[in-house]
Amino acid sequence: MFAPVYFDHNATTPLDSRVLEGMLPYFSTQYGNASSRHEYGRAARRAIDEARQRVAYAVGAHPTEVVFTSGGSEANNLFIKGAAACLTPGVVAISAIEHPCVREPAKALQRSGWKLREIAVDGNCRVASADFQAALEERPALVSVMLANNETGAVQAIAAMATQAKSVRAWFHTDAVQAFGKRALDFRALNAAGVHAMTLSAHKLGGPKGAGALVVDKRVDLQPLIAGGGHERGLRSGTENVAAIVGFGLAAELVVASLDAREKRMVVLRSELETGLAQQGATLFAGAAERLPNTSYFAFAGIDGETLVGKLDRAGFAVAAGAACSSANPEPSHVLLAMGVAPSLARGAVRVSLGPDNTELQVREFLAALRTTILQLKGLASIASLTS
Amino acid sequence: MFAPVYFDHNATTPLDSRVLEGMLPYFSTQYGNASSRHEYGRAARRAIDEARQRVAYAVGAHPTEVVFTSGGSEANNLFIKGAAACLTPGVVAISAIEHPCVREPAKALQRSGWKLREIAVDGNCRVASADFQAALEERPALVSVMLANNETGAVQAIAAMATQAKSVRAWFHTDAVQAFGKRALDFRALNAAGVHAMTLSAHKLGGPKGAGALVVDKRVDLQPLIAGGGHERGLRSGTENVAAIVGFGLAAELVVASLDAREKRMVVLRSELETGLAQQGATLFAGAAERLPNTSYFAFAGIDGETLVGKLDRAGFAVAAGAACSSANPEPSHVLLAMGVAPSLARGAVRVSLGPDNTELQVREFLAALRTTILQLKGLASIASLTS
Repeated sequence: MFAPVYFDHNATTPLDSRVLEGMLPYFSTQYGNASSRHEYGRAARRAIDEARQRVAYAVGAHPTEVVFTSGGSEANNLFIKGAAACLTPGVVAISAIEHPCVREPAKALQRSGWKLREIAVDGNCRVASADFQAALEERPALVSVMLANNETGAVQAIAAMATQAKSVRAWFHTDAVQAFGKRALDFRALNAAGVHAMTLSAHKLGGPKGAGALVVDKRVDLQPLIAGGGHERGLRSGTENVAAIVGFGLAAELVVASLDAREKRMVVLRSELETGLAQQGATLFAGAAERLPNTSYFAFAGIDGETLVGKLDRAGFAVAAGAACSSANPEPSHVLLAMGVAPSLARGAVRVSLGPDNTELQVREFLAALRTTILQLKGLASIASLTS
Repeated sequence: MFAPVYFDHNATTPLDSRVLEGMLPYFSTQYGNASSRHEYGRAARRAIDEARQRVAYAVGAHPTEVVFTSGGSEANNLFIKGAAACLTPGVVAISAIEHPCVREPAKALQRSGWKLREIAVDGNCRVASADFQAALEERPALVSVMLANNETGAVQAIAAMATQAKSVRAWFHTDAVQAFGKRALDFRALNAAGVHAMTLSAHKLGGPKGAGALVVDKRVDLQPLIAGGGHERGLRSGTENVAAIVGFGLAAELVVASLDAREKRMVVLRSELETGLAQQGATLFAGAAERLPNTSYFAFAGIDGETLVGKLDRAGFAVAAGAACSSANPEPSHVLLAMGVAPSLARGAVRVSLGPDNTELQVREFLAALRTTILQLKGLASIASLTS
């Protein structure tokens, strides 16, 4: 089978084989419904309890603060809509670079009388402090700022922002989906600083699709999105996806154990990648920001990102054009536009997001393939300009 | 390993090994995010498209009518809350025997100005036609009646009810989670009769936990519960759980292919079971109703259901006390109370739900274990009454 080199770990990651091994019993003999009182059910319940402990331990939270969901999008919606449902309509403040699964529920609140306040970012994808302060002056009831951006990898100073937000008594949420597995997370410390809730997803860190969590301070009142049998302390009903939850727990444990080594390795690989990109004349986005160690987001002037991704795919390299979250969205990235990047350059955006199995050789081969492809596309562009 | 006989298929089912085999590639080499444009992503997208066709074909729907969710609870919530969000508050009518994941979202609507009208059932768990008519006179905007009840197995005349509901132009939804895999479903015919939406779940029919669907007439306006990247035609955002969706498709295809044989086999086994139960003096619930072929729900006067289930578990038989959907609910079943069963008898309720791998020998051994256990519990009860 033709297996392109996978450079798209911010979209999703290969399932760690040790995680799959741990999940398999729950696809064969241990098939119980965790709500059943018989031995099959109790075994499933024990497995979920253990996974909850693993996830909590990996992010410095208490197991009772972990609410399992079907993934990050659900967890973000649960916080935004669930907290809003317990409050009188007011202001919800989110950064301009949030993932659609924070932006869209925040927009939905507008239909029920909320004001949506977007917080500006600077040219390096960092939340602009002055505008953050200005947003706080509008006394938002809810604030959501992502820990690390999925496109640029830019990391925000969440603890400092949460501390400032304490003065207005807002519930402060952070989407940590991209950060988890790429840098250390400590919910206890974030919570002490003023963060009340944090979203996680399993499939971004070697775990399975179908599991995520909202880690949430118990003082936050939440209405469930999915009401029913009262699972997850009444915050998320529905038969638990036992195998996926077990996989989430194992992936969380494994990734934390190897985090330092992973980070160091990513930084070396990415440095080689970005040196090569600079030599080829690419514009690197958010280059001056503190970034996730695995993410490079760049463009070549005059080269369309979609086209480049397609050519690279055929050359054997799987990379992303903009964010891989929406199946048919031809608009340039809202993240780049918020950073003040010109739409013409933003349309060229390509993201490489490395993973622990990538190698230096793959990076070198990628740079060679990229050089060939860019020359080819520039050649076509100049022919087109000659004949037009 | 000690493996009790599994008689709790309405709670969840073992994953069919052929389904697992079909899922495994999506846990190893085919790990792409279905929204990615490269080959990994396109392979995931093709797998989801194929699964959507399989599920649609299995229930007589068009693939574009299938909205994948994380399970039945989410699909029921999506219909109730999602349709209500597009309507001005009015009356939502649900039967008194709905699963909590229909009841609770319907109750949630009450907080936003809706009136909740419960429709009565008779002593055999069948929706009472006079009360259904009376409910329609209140001109509900939404009606939800389950196709088959999870506890008693009673099957409702959904097509006839939907036809009646046409006169008031209500959106008519049916929770078919328990019916799918146990009797033939034809959404095309139901839709022609006036059913607009139908909920399905994979793990009740040999598929994995973590996948379900709302099959929905495209004329129904719905707001998503989970907003974000715009997956599932904007009705359910979040990275698709590819492996679970693939498993759902395969399970749907397999179960439909063997449905007639399964039904015949279940009826024979259950008949033997119920003959034995009658001989031992059990009260069978909804015995006069048309029921799912695999479900027997019964009680022995003076014997606590939880206690009986615990003893049977230790004797090697996994059965359910009431519904296995809520982890800590000591109240007697709302379904039995709605049927007019005395709370004292309802507390004795035990459900046996058979599956395709169960055998006559298992049924006979179960009846023998039940006889011993009942005699023992009656003995304890009479000693307790002597010494009190």
